[in-house]
Amino acid sequence: MEIGIVGLGLIGGSLAIDLRQQGHRLLGVSRRTETCQRAIEQGFVDQASSDLALVAAAEVIFLCTPLGALEATVTELLPLLSPAAILTDVGSVKAAVVELIAPQWPNFVGGHPMAGKAESGLEAAEAGLFQQRAYVITPVESTAAPAVATVAALAQSLGSELHYCDPQVHDQAVAWISHLPVMVSASLIAACAEAEPTVLELAQKLASSGFRDTSRVGGGNPELGVMMARYNQAALLQALQSYRQQFDQLIDLIEQNDWSGLEQALIQTQQDRTQFRICQ
Amino acid sequence: MEIGIVGLGLIGGSLAIDLRQQGHRLLGVSRRTETCQRAIEQGFVDQASSDLALVAAAEVIFLCTPLGALEATVTELLPLLSPAAILTDVGSVKAAVVELIAPQWPNFVGGHPMAGKAESGLEAAEAGLFQQRAYVITPVESTAAPAVATVAALAQSLGSELHYCDPQVHDQAVAWISHLPVMVSASLIAACAEAEPTVLELAQKLASSGFRDTSRVGGGNPELGVMMARYNQAALLQALQSYRQQFDQLIDLIEQNDWSGLEQALIQTQQDRTQFRICQ
Repeated sequence: MEIGIVGLGLIGGSLAIDLRQQGHRLLGVSRRTETCQRAIEQGFVDQASSDLALVAAAEVIFLCTPLGALEATVTELLPLLSPAAILTDVGSVKAAVVELIAPQWPNFVGGHPMAGKAESGLEAAEAGLFQQRAYVITPVESTAAPAVATVAALAQSLGSELHYCDPQVHDQAVAWISHLPVMVSASLIAACAEAEPTVLELAQKLASSGFRDTSRVGGGNPELGVMMARYNQAALLQALQSYRQQFDQLIDLIEQNDWSGLEQALIQTQQDRTQFRICQ
Repeated sequence: MEIGIVGLGLIGGSLAIDLRQQGHRLLGVSRRTETCQRAIEQGFVDQASSDLALVAAAEVIFLCTPLGALEATVTELLPLLSPAAILTDVGSVKAAVVELIAPQWPNFVGGHPMAGKAESGLEAAEAGLFQQRAYVITPVESTAAPAVATVAALAQSLGSELHYCDPQVHDQAVAWISHLPVMVSASLIAACAEAEPTVLELAQKLASSGFRDTSRVGGGNPELGVMMARYNQAALLQALQSYRQQFDQLIDLIEQNDWSGLEQALIQTQQDRTQFRICQ
């Protein structure tokens, strides 16, 4: 199969490695000529160009640009394609993307391979990144069924675990488990920075694994954090408000010396956490 | 040296292993006879008893009971001791403990070995638990200097990294880096549990390392969480209020579509996090 990858970063590059390994012919597009050269030299793709026309004849095209660049890319790309071309994306929010592309392209299938790492860019790309990771596909009523089947088969060929859902349900779920944690974690770091200098200095020395783990995603890529908030604003705000209520309830329990109430709340969170598969 | 350990749990048991290995004579006290038997059989201590009188002649006594049992233990123990006996504790809050014991015992030295693991009890005890971990010692004006030197030497013999500070400064520092993260993390789990059933079900399947790490300490030992709040209430409430302000500021930025403001805030947290030694 001839497969186009638009955007040769961590996700685009990793997709290219695995798909080329399977025998597909890979065509890569990157704005940066250097990235195109590296992608060819290092065998990520068969051909690369900064011109979108390179992927015009591909059977399936993965859109792997940052969310902020997606609209401009789609506007430029669609007129170049034959109507049979299957288009899919890898963005971490789905409703905004599906609403943008689906009305223009019945062969568009929203997708979200839930794999990542701290590093970004083509240098960080690696084989097997999607193995045993969730890959969410979000078809809507207008989506052509054969396009869904093709994208699903490719996702499965990567060793991913497929999930199908509505774009809005996807966005709400990731607001809770992925975007809310970033804001919760960032606020922890911001709050600690407000401690008195003597206290802060000691805190910086004494911090151990509890602080390290709770603050990890809040110290991550700022650009990614902004994208989550920008493109998943409504679902994230709902999660933020709900979080604030829960947090206020804990403050109340502590202010009122309600230790049995606090213990009940912490017993509940201990139990609830085990319902998340990764925490079992 | 003859060393008493009152409370044979994770910390007391781990202290006993390392100190006995160094050639000290270890005397262990536990309320539970079974624990005493196991401690002797498995070579944690030379002698064990459920009677505090066992440690009456020890040169140094480590108080390793839960914080909630400390006051009763101290009331019963002090009349049994010669005034030369050096007393220290391992509690995760210091001001309340020091205020309780220091006025009655100049040879008392507040201590906090900052080592732990998810499991608790004597079964979880292990050699080398304190190696390369912080060990905070919080002497006050009335504390006898030779007692401080003795406890410091023992802490260093465990391979720990010594820190000296005021009990209040210790409690504020751990409020930020240890007790606040528990409440922040527990609120995340509690908030997610409020999601609509369809969304929650998907969220439980899709959760990945970001959720796992941010929720880890909030899903920990409820009893320990209550003890932190109960014995470090003032410092924790201050940290909780400061956190809430920072969290509200992030909500405001997102509500107002202030993406450059949000990016600035996340760039700042990314930088600030690197100032915590464990996060470098």
